Amino acid sequence: MTHYFSSDFKLGILGGGQLGKMMLYDTRKLDIQTYVMDPNPEAPSKIACNHFETGDLMDYDRVMEFGKQVDVLTFEIEFVNVKALEDLEASGVKVYPSAATLNKIQNKSVQKEFYKANQIPTADFTTYPSLEALKKDVSEGKVKFPFVWKSSTGGYDGKGVSVIKSEKNLEALPNGECLTEELVDFKTEIAIIVARNVSGNIKTYPVVEMEFNPDTNQVEYVLCPARIEPSIAEKARNLAQLVSNRFEHVGLLAIEMFLTQDDDIIVNEVAPRPHNSGHFSIEGSYTNQFEQHLRAILDLPLGETSSKTNSVMVNLVGEENHTGDVVYQGIQTIMDMPGVIPHIYGKKQTRPFRKMGHVNIIHSDIKEARKIAEHVKSTIKVISKH
Amino acid sequence: MTHYFSSDFKLGILGGGQLGKMMLYDTRKLDIQTYVMDPNPEAPSKIACNHFETGDLMDYDRVMEFGKQVDVLTFEIEFVNVKALEDLEASGVKVYPSAATLNKIQNKSVQKEFYKANQIPTADFTTYPSLEALKKDVSEGKVKFPFVWKSSTGGYDGKGVSVIKSEKNLEALPNGECLTEELVDFKTEIAIIVARNVSGNIKTYPVVEMEFNPDTNQVEYVLCPARIEPSIAEKARNLAQLVSNRFEHVGLLAIEMFLTQDDDIIVNEVAPRPHNSGHFSIEGSYTNQFEQHLRAILDLPLGETSSKTNSVMVNLVGEENHTGDVVYQGIQTIMDMPGVIPHIYGKKQTRPFRKMGHVNIIHSDIKEARKIAEHVKSTIKVISKH
Repeated sequence: MTHYFSSDFKLGILGGGQLGKMMLYDTRKLDIQTYVMDPNPEAPSKIACNHFETGDLMDYDRVMEFGKQVDVLTFEIEFVNVKALEDLEASGVKVYPSAATLNKIQNKSVQKEFYKANQIPTADFTTYPSLEALKKDVSEGKVKFPFVWKSSTGGYDGKGVSVIKSEKNLEALPNGECLTEELVDFKTEIAIIVARNVSGNIKTYPVVEMEFNPDTNQVEYVLCPARIEPSIAEKARNLAQLVSNRFEHVGLLAIEMFLTQDDDIIVNEVAPRPHNSGHFSIEGSYTNQFEQHLRAILDLPLGETSSKTNSVMVNLVGEENHTGDVVYQGIQTIMDMPGVIPHIYGKKQTRPFRKMGHVNIIHSDIKEARKIAEHVKSTIKVISKH
Repeated sequence: MTHYFSSDFKLGILGGGQLGKMMLYDTRKLDIQTYVMDPNPEAPSKIACNHFETGDLMDYDRVMEFGKQVDVLTFEIEFVNVKALEDLEASGVKVYPSAATLNKIQNKSVQKEFYKANQIPTADFTTYPSLEALKKDVSEGKVKFPFVWKSSTGGYDGKGVSVIKSEKNLEALPNGECLTEELVDFKTEIAIIVARNVSGNIKTYPVVEMEFNPDTNQVEYVLCPARIEPSIAEKARNLAQLVSNRFEHVGLLAIEMFLTQDDDIIVNEVAPRPHNSGHFSIEGSYTNQFEQHLRAILDLPLGETSSKTNSVMVNLVGEENHTGDVVYQGIQTIMDMPGVIPHIYGKKQTRPFRKMGHVNIIHSDIKEARKIAEHVKSTIKVISKH
């Protein structure tokens, strides 16, 4: 049996952003030795790991060099060199989630085809090898406005997704492989974090509700639990379990879904890692999502996923017109509100809409938590010093 | 107004043991820059701080050199050079808890005299400048067996305290300043963590119950809340608030108390820092004790101290007859029990009775939590590899 704790065992993490940083609270808590690689020499995960290296995560040689040093390799971001993961697996390094799982997810066109092939309900779509091919279909009247355009690769935080209402909107899009999706008429967007360990045991977290900022398309609030009927929540958790089983992933799978006007649930997209929609779990759940990810990839028993109490998460993003050394204006005021815990990601520089942190509001009453969340949102401002 | 988060502000922490290590989870969470000094170059806090130095905490020059680099200085252990703290205060460094507070606590004889002078109920006692002076009183029949002997300085984790039943027991005691206390006939030992910020605002955590191992005199279980009448709990919290006000400390004050057979509450001793009896708060409370300590010493608003759910903490200490590279035997089994979260301190070497970690058991039913705690205790063993 492998001894993971206070031992010579080495866990590698590709990516050293805020997700990696928060995972390190739990590797420290369990005293698991960690190696981290990130292109940014001042990445949030730089301290609190045992060993840090800089390196491009898409660079085959760097990922190989880095991965060969560790016993188990995981990642906190999908944009890593998959060929290197495959070759590391072949050389005996345990890679979780596997290269095969990442291959099904990294490219959004492939991900959508996977849903189709596995009878997982999702919005109707068409894939295109290039923007030109899409424009051709539009000019031939084969695509009806409005529709959703998604870049097949590289999208995150509301980037790489646009609602296209007219031919004019097409001009602003970048070139490259993409897909179109029907615009879903949904009541609400929901998400579920599923954990699956190496042995194949599965646990699902409660359904959360995501409220988006209509301007930036970024998540503004995440409510746990979602304000939906228990029967709908159960349906969503069953679907999440099905998706998890189909992917056969190891680690966390964050599944974003639409609840349609007809109370159908369809899968929007997934991420094979700890996720913004699971941050509520840090203070809200019996087992937080980062510890759960570690339990899953080390084949430890999965922890209890129910909530200690209800919660709302508020994302903290940089204000418009502010670039430079960050100041969290109003943070002392929000810390005086009951059950309010700020999480600061440690990025020294703010930029408009950059994810700089989040705030968890813990309260037995979800309505009260949602009210406090709005108060938090209007009080704290991520601005620059000068 | 001082900006503490993602800024140039520097918090210094004297001591880099497990308490410091756990405080660093919260300095990371809030992105507060930290400087840590500890004599051990492999101290648990070595990673996750921004800057680490080795140095003897009782060495005046080293504490001065270290302290001059920071804006606010705190400590995670009482055994630090108080003269240096005084001189750092005089030079403009904010030291919390203050040298004056530490002066009232560091020496147990002084601490007991402080209770007496401030009408704080405590067990009757006599102080002695040396063991010889105590032996003289014993030989002259001025002290009755049994009594409690305490070393005035340096005691912790059940060391520096003995129940003396006969003259023979005196032979095993070390020389030095000491005190004797009447043996209190108590129902149970309880404790309360009080937080007091720079502005003088106070919050008390719920009363916890401590169960000791009769052989080693170390705390085995901490239950939150204590299984006592609400009226008794309120009396204890009122006393804790009084003690806090008398000490005028800044930061946390952990107050250990006896609940006597007559339902009186008397103070045993205090520690001006996060404390073993507050570890339940990491998963159990709205605000964990380490974050609360930071809030207090940075004069931020104090966080909510109530519990999200009930909890029992189990201390993990090294097994007898085991010295060397540590192995946590049975840890995978306990992680399969509901609501069980291990905390490993990161000491590579185990020794008999060394504090190596703790386990929090979170459960809505305190009786159920206590049962699981016993199961945890009998399942996990801290042993050496060979």
